[in-house]
Amino acid sequence: MGVVVQNIARAPAVVIDGLARAGVATVHEAQGRSGCLHSYMRPIYAGAQIAGSAVTISAPPGDNWMVHVAIEQLQPGDILVLAPTSPCDNGYFGDLLATSAMARGCRGLVIDAGVRDVRDLTAMGFPVWARAISAQGTVKETLGSVNVPIVCAGQAIVAGDVIVADDDGVVVVPRADAASVLAAAEARLAAEEAKRQRLAAGELGLDIYDMRARLAAKGLKYV
Amino acid sequence: MGVVVQNIARAPAVVIDGLARAGVATVHEAQGRSGCLHSYMRPIYAGAQIAGSAVTISAPPGDNWMVHVAIEQLQPGDILVLAPTSPCDNGYFGDLLATSAMARGCRGLVIDAGVRDVRDLTAMGFPVWARAISAQGTVKETLGSVNVPIVCAGQAIVAGDVIVADDDGVVVVPRADAASVLAAAEARLAAEEAKRQRLAAGELGLDIYDMRARLAAKGLKYV
Amino acid sequence: MGVVVQNIARAPAVVIDGLARAGVATVHEAQGRSGCLHSYMRPIYAGAQIAGSAVTISAPPGDNWMVHVAIEQLQPGDILVLAPTSPCDNGYFGDLLATSAMARGCRGLVIDAGVRDVRDLTAMGFPVWARAISAQGTVKETLGSVNVPIVCAGQAIVAGDVIVADDDGVVVVPRADAASVLAAAEARLAAEEAKRQRLAAGELGLDIYDMRARLAAKGLKYV
Amino acid sequence: MGVVVQNIARAPAVVIDGLARAGVATVHEAQGRSGCLHSYMRPIYAGAQIAGSAVTISAPPGDNWMVHVAIEQLQPGDILVLAPTSPCDNGYFGDLLATSAMARGCRGLVIDAGVRDVRDLTAMGFPVWARAISAQGTVKETLGSVNVPIVCAGQAIVAGDVIVADDDGVVVVPRADAASVLAAAEARLAAEEAKRQRLAAGELGLDIYDMRARLAAKGLKYV
Amino acid sequence: MGVVVQNIARAPAVVIDGLARAGVATVHEAQGRSGCLHSYMRPIYAGAQIAGSAVTISAPPGDNWMVHVAIEQLQPGDILVLAPTSPCDNGYFGDLLATSAMARGCRGLVIDAGVRDVRDLTAMGFPVWARAISAQGTVKETLGSVNVPIVCAGQAIVAGDVIVADDDGVVVVPRADAASVLAAAEARLAAEEAKRQRLAAGELGLDIYDMRARLAAKGLKYV
Amino acid sequence: MGVVVQNIARAPAVVIDGLARAGVATVHEAQGRSGCLHSYMRPIYAGAQIAGSAVTISAPPGDNWMVHVAIEQLQPGDILVLAPTSPCDNGYFGDLLATSAMARGCRGLVIDAGVRDVRDLTAMGFPVWARAISAQGTVKETLGSVNVPIVCAGQAIVAGDVIVADDDGVVVVPRADAASVLAAAEARLAAEEAKRQRLAAGELGLDIYDMRARLAAKGLKYV
Repeated sequence: MGVVVQNIARAPAVVIDGLARAGVATVHEAQGRSGCLHSYMRPIYAGAQIAGSAVTISAPPGDNWMVHVAIEQLQPGDILVLAPTSPCDNGYFGDLLATSAMARGCRGLVIDAGVRDVRDLTAMGFPVWARAISAQGTVKETLGSVNVPIVCAGQAIVAGDVIVADDDGVVVVPRADAASVLAAAEARLAAEEAKRQRLAAGELGLDIYDMRARLAAKGLKYV
Repeated sequence: MGVVVQNIARAPAVVIDGLARAGVATVHEAQGRSGCLHSYMRPIYAGAQIAGSAVTISAPPGDNWMVHVAIEQLQPGDILVLAPTSPCDNGYFGDLLATSAMARGCRGLVIDAGVRDVRDLTAMGFPVWARAISAQGTVKETLGSVNVPIVCAGQAIVAGDVIVADDDGVVVVPRADAASVLAAAEARLAAEEAKRQRLAAGELGLDIYDMRARLAAKGLKYV
Repeated sequence: MGVVVQNIARAPAVVIDGLARAGVATVHEAQGRSGCLHSYMRPIYAGAQIAGSAVTISAPPGDNWMVHVAIEQLQPGDILVLAPTSPCDNGYFGDLLATSAMARGCRGLVIDAGVRDVRDLTAMGFPVWARAISAQGTVKETLGSVNVPIVCAGQAIVAGDVIVADDDGVVVVPRADAASVLAAAEARLAAEEAKRQRLAAGELGLDIYDMRARLAAKGLKYV
Repeated sequence: MGVVVQNIARAPAVVIDGLARAGVATVHEAQGRSGCLHSYMRPIYAGAQIAGSAVTISAPPGDNWMVHVAIEQLQPGDILVLAPTSPCDNGYFGDLLATSAMARGCRGLVIDAGVRDVRDLTAMGFPVWARAISAQGTVKETLGSVNVPIVCAGQAIVAGDVIVADDDGVVVVPRADAASVLAAAEARLAAEEAKRQRLAAGELGLDIYDMRARLAAKGLKYV
Repeated sequence: MGVVVQNIARAPAVVIDGLARAGVATVHEAQGRSGCLHSYMRPIYAGAQIAGSAVTISAPPGDNWMVHVAIEQLQPGDILVLAPTSPCDNGYFGDLLATSAMARGCRGLVIDAGVRDVRDLTAMGFPVWARAISAQGTVKETLGSVNVPIVCAGQAIVAGDVIVADDDGVVVVPRADAASVLAAAEARLAAEEAKRQRLAAGELGLDIYDMRARLAAKGLKYV
Repeated sequence: MGVVVQNIARAPAVVIDGLARAGVATVHEAQGRSGCLHSYMRPIYAGAQIAGSAVTISAPPGDNWMVHVAIEQLQPGDILVLAPTSPCDNGYFGDLLATSAMARGCRGLVIDAGVRDVRDLTAMGFPVWARAISAQGTVKETLGSVNVPIVCAGQAIVAGDVIVADDDGVVVVPRADAASVLAAAEARLAAEEAKRQRLAAGELGLDIYDMRARLAAKGLKYV
């Protein structure tokens, strides 16, 4: 506790933006079905789809002091990612902090706790994925850390990892894997388009994916 | 496990469509306040109001193979209803499966688990009532069954039962009761309209429903 | 149980309306970070921001009889606040009761249980903050009480207390404190505006709030 | 609602008692990994291991009137199984009802709600599997039903089905399957004993169950 | 926040001890089925049955400073009752604080948060009813209050109210009602004994409580 | 997925055993109040207090194949630590697997899922800390990994880290920190003994820890 790591490596912007376009479900599949944060992490408004480099915050329950410290570490394209050191649904973040974060180019917030001023944040176009919406305020008394490894909503996240978030939730991609995951995601998207057309035309997945023999071998019985 | 029932009986389309118009709360009351699935089953977007015949799926946790099998059993007007064999919030279903289901006339999905690609599903107009929104993918390794009796979100459902779903949640009507429940629902709706006008004019439920004497008999005291 | 308190004191309308304008987060901070109901209390639609005097209802699980009794006690500007005597997610309230409550000038409902007919309520513009959306109906068999002290979603509420509710949730202000809390809230709002502009211009909270020395004294280390 | 089915079929006592000896985990496996009630159903004390014929109760939230009605339907060797019509954790059952049930030969209670007087019940040796322990009392105002099909903690249960319960939880066996499930369970127990001795001697499941080739074929890599 | 009320009124010791003997379920019924804390409040070991005067603590999440302040206010026969100002499961209390509290005659702790050192507390015979068992430590940075009104696990509690706790959970009795509730509880216990003997002899509650006519009038049907 | 790491480093046995003696709460404090797994991880029986080197398992929901693979990797003094790749409460582990693990010197299991055969495990003295007790069985179809980094119940765990578990729950100590954490834990235990005696003699924490001036400076008011 009480450490701020100032220099973190980030993935290339072109990779990050490609992952944003691919979206959470595709990226998650492309990296071997891993990296999804718990499904209770929900967007405060529909339609945002972003990616960015994680600036991580480890904060005590009910204490948002480290958010101020973290904002100084933001670079354009970053996403704040906050995990409390024990479960807490307080509203750590609201419109003033969002104003400050946006002024530094921050793309959004992922927080395994609460957020408030959601009407203002929606109007500002500052997206947040949170465990709770709560007006409950916090104090500024106890240190946490910035840009140290954290566990947020069930996933280990290192500062500089790529965060992708949309209406399906949030996924983390380790920085070193970002380019290869993007390549796999784009390949997957290309392959999906052909399947979508065949399915729309009435072909069955049972046939497209050649499942019938394997189902029969497993013992599936039609009655 | 490992059984697909191919021929199921369905209620008449005119009855099903009448139940859709009546909506979940009215249908639930009309069949004696029974049949509501747990309240955690929420629509992925507001405004859809549907009814259809249940094509049921019993699937292992984290395995969506049986969805492909079930889609072949769909007839126009059906609704897919999936219950995992133990609690699971994985995203069993996304836009490709929805494309396939829509191609066969499916009206929607009720799933006591997770769904993904919710932005696409919303754009496609394919409504889903789910326990969770989750990008977490699934495998295709273990058999389940299709059109066997299941328990979904607290209600026993038999293939061919009528599912009604709207912004209030989901209710199931046993197929054999569908016509009589529709009649009761329509009678209820007719009766409500007169009450609505009297209440809007300022009359009290205490008087319209003649409650004062019974409240006093029970011992209600005004102080 | 079984008591209806008919005469309750209310805060002045001008104070109540001022608190509505200030909103939940500001009012909560202005009264010393207290009074927030649990964060599971969510609005059925976005955008409503109201305040009013609490008409309280203590009701048994699965029994909405007392809602009818409470509606007679409503005056224009009031808000119904219902707490079940044990946890329950039934839909105690729907469009007919809302029609009746609106006819008496009621501004909304706060209910630590379920609500139904949410599409109709949205169309009517009758806002509700609830623990659940559920079509499950209730009976009218057992007495509760109206305008007695209750605990609703974690907060003690006395009839006539001011309820403020918006997209961030719900906060209660004791009636006797309403005027002073409003003054503090308005002072807070005025002070925030200057800060917002400085933050938008890129100044850091670390500097505006003079946090650096105190952080260093606590031992924060930059690496 | 409002129906009491008086004559129900029961499985043979010798089959029921055999299932009790086999225990929940074995019985569940023996019937194809099905029938387990949700894992939140926990015994009020450790060490009880029972089986019996289900006498089912469907009861409104917060209303235990039907328990009295059900007790009259008990025969020696039965187990009471109660499901509320919507989620409720009230204490529907305590030492007086247990005294009455024991007087009729009842072996225990499975309740997807609350129970109270747990110290007395423990002293009496009356085992209960419940969702909650709660002193919250109930009323006797609204009818439910006895010996109708119910869904209890996620499983459909018909009166006369065999309930098996021990420290691992609760499983239901359809009455018609009871004898064949018992046979499968006993075969399973016999087969397990040999495996237990080989495992205790240090042999690995990888070898006993011949898993290595299949793991390699799936792609497992040792590094 | 930041207030310690030093002089609180307490109920007579003889009344408190009588309520302890009556136990939670009986006391709850005797005061009209009110006062039970949420059922998630569980004892750390079975068999304790106590009553005492509440010394209340309102504490921030993750901060146990006020426990030290509260201990100075304890008198023999008191029970500490702690509610965090927002949901928190940290271990606020362990064996050192228990040693200190016992030295002042404290009978136990009721805490809507976590407790730790449960093996030591069990060995010391210091009973605790808690929402969680957690080793997670707390800080001492932010003030709370002692002996102010709180809401703990869903019940409003004023310092000096009588807390009764046993294996069924926790109930609060307002100090002013303590004597009359004890009288009602003792009457209830006396009446129960006769019923228990009749039930044990095989008489049915249906007959003892004369329920058959009322059930028939409500429409109960035997088939 | 699909990787087994065969050679992992472990902390010295003397350090591990020292951490076991210190217990979870002390170890957690000694490493700066970090490392506690979520409080829902509970022991299946009271009184076990162990430490060991983590052999980690990442397993799909409802699939326990990797447990067999992991057991081969066990050395005497190890603890199995299993995290499912998405939330699951199935009973992955029972008495046969425990027999096998014990034959290899395994000290216990920490599993963010379910366990079964708890009566047998208790009799065998094989301790388990789990999220659930569940008889629900699993399949052996999909690969996971062994001795890769996992997140278990909210904590990142690397194979070879030291796991400490007792009645207060579970804490993880990074292997590299184990010796220094042990030293800090032992210092803490030594210091606590003196405090315990002073507290038992009636001295107050307010005085022993010199809190009065700081409380007054923060503004605490006695009324």
